[in-house]
Amino acid sequence: MGKSVRAEREITRYEKGEHKKVLDHVVTEHPVTVKVNGEEFVTMVCSPEYIEDMVIGFLASEGVIRKYEDIDEVWYQEKEGYVHVKTNKVNPFYRNFQSKRYITSCCGMSRQGFVFVNDALTAKQMTDIHVQITPDDCFRLMKDMQESATIFQETGGVHNASLCDVNGTVLSRMDIGRHNALDKIYGYCLQHNISIEDKIIVFSGRISSEILLKVAKIGCEIVLSKSAPTELALELAEDLGITTVGFIRNQSFNVYTHPERIVDL
Amino acid sequence: MGKSVRAEREITRYEKGEHKKVLDHVVTEHPVTVKVNGEEFVTMVCSPEYIEDMVIGFLASEGVIRKYEDIDEVWYQEKEGYVHVKTNKVNPFYRNFQSKRYITSCCGMSRQGFVFVNDALTAKQMTDIHVQITPDDCFRLMKDMQESATIFQETGGVHNASLCDVNGTVLSRMDIGRHNALDKIYGYCLQHNISIEDKIIVFSGRISSEILLKVAKIGCEIVLSKSAPTELALELAEDLGITTVGFIRNQSFNVYTHPERIVDL
Repeated sequence: MGKSVRAEREITRYEKGEHKKVLDHVVTEHPVTVKVNGEEFVTMVCSPEYIEDMVIGFLASEGVIRKYEDIDEVWYQEKEGYVHVKTNKVNPFYRNFQSKRYITSCCGMSRQGFVFVNDALTAKQMTDIHVQITPDDCFRLMKDMQESATIFQETGGVHNASLCDVNGTVLSRMDIGRHNALDKIYGYCLQHNISIEDKIIVFSGRISSEILLKVAKIGCEIVLSKSAPTELALELAEDLGITTVGFIRNQSFNVYTHPERIVDL
Repeated sequence: MGKSVRAEREITRYEKGEHKKVLDHVVTEHPVTVKVNGEEFVTMVCSPEYIEDMVIGFLASEGVIRKYEDIDEVWYQEKEGYVHVKTNKVNPFYRNFQSKRYITSCCGMSRQGFVFVNDALTAKQMTDIHVQITPDDCFRLMKDMQESATIFQETGGVHNASLCDVNGTVLSRMDIGRHNALDKIYGYCLQHNISIEDKIIVFSGRISSEILLKVAKIGCEIVLSKSAPTELALELAEDLGITTVGFIRNQSFNVYTHPERIVDL
């Protein structure tokens, strides 16, 4: 039996002067340590589903591998919390620039706002327009994502991400870690050769620079969120050619960068 | 002039079929690289205020130093984004256990749910009751925290944390990173010898295991949140003796662990 993404627990519920013991659902967190060729690489805390997808997506977005075929074997040793990855194709660029800051002479940040060299190497530049959506698509895709987010509705504790095309949701993932949900999507797409360039990412949380970089590494041109972006994320989006739409709520939203992919604007 | 925690930016605002260009406030993110005795230690992305406090709180909560007096010098090289720390008192335990997983024979996690050995060494166990609050205190302290969170109200993009006693807020910090706001509080307290044992942490976001561990390292007995906890955080709270209260909204809340510090329950 696999680990569960939520647990049941007795709590004390207080409401308007009354209190009682009730059963409640709480989201779980599990540490997973990735070993690449037997060597400890990273420990991630995540929701325990689609673990292999998450690890494949993470390694690709970090630039450790360049494609799914670079991996010879990946398996999840569930009880012990290890994911073992066998590969003899570790990207040589990765080794050289691991954790290296992207330093320029002026202020410790590049014009594009990259913090790490590996991000600059793996983030894709979107120069064309492969997908356009209407304001109504924005509302509908956000509604679809929120309706598929059943664990959030029951526990209030996770982030949700969907990969969509203009017709609707292609796949939907949740995780207690902001970027894990996106790594799970990326890992699935790499294994199943799902083309990305006509797709849209819909995300439940804030668009931080880290989330924007994940979107760029996956290779999506549009990211939709019901929440706020950060200035650094927007500088990256501006330069990488990504359309960012935030605060999609009721009948309104904000387009922060590259509005040319939202028709009727 | 210092860096700002928010920036102004022209965006396209869509509302009920109409769209127009408006000026909006967006929260900023800044990478800060900590150098301990000249060696790169970590790069954190944060809101650019109270940076030295954050670094001191981070190093103490990671177990690198054991008290503020262990640091000889700390200074922020703002333009380049470096914080330099000089110390000849790096905790020898830290060096031994850096990033080491806390492994037990059964399942890769200790009974208490620690993921890293250093967390097990620096998290404090709360065995006594130094502070008790009423349900009305919970609502009032949450309201105080939310009212002091002006940046969030303007940008929607940050986490807020307050250190309180039963009378109200002692200090309040914001950051785009979940745990940075708590590190800023901890670093301030260490420098100013503020006693912690009668204090309460009020937090705007989810109580993940990482947040719960920060609370335990700071040494608070009660954590209040308007959001959800995770199961791993609650297992840690149970064992460490910390009272966790979540979903403080309208006239209701949930007490998940150690209800003995909430009077009238």
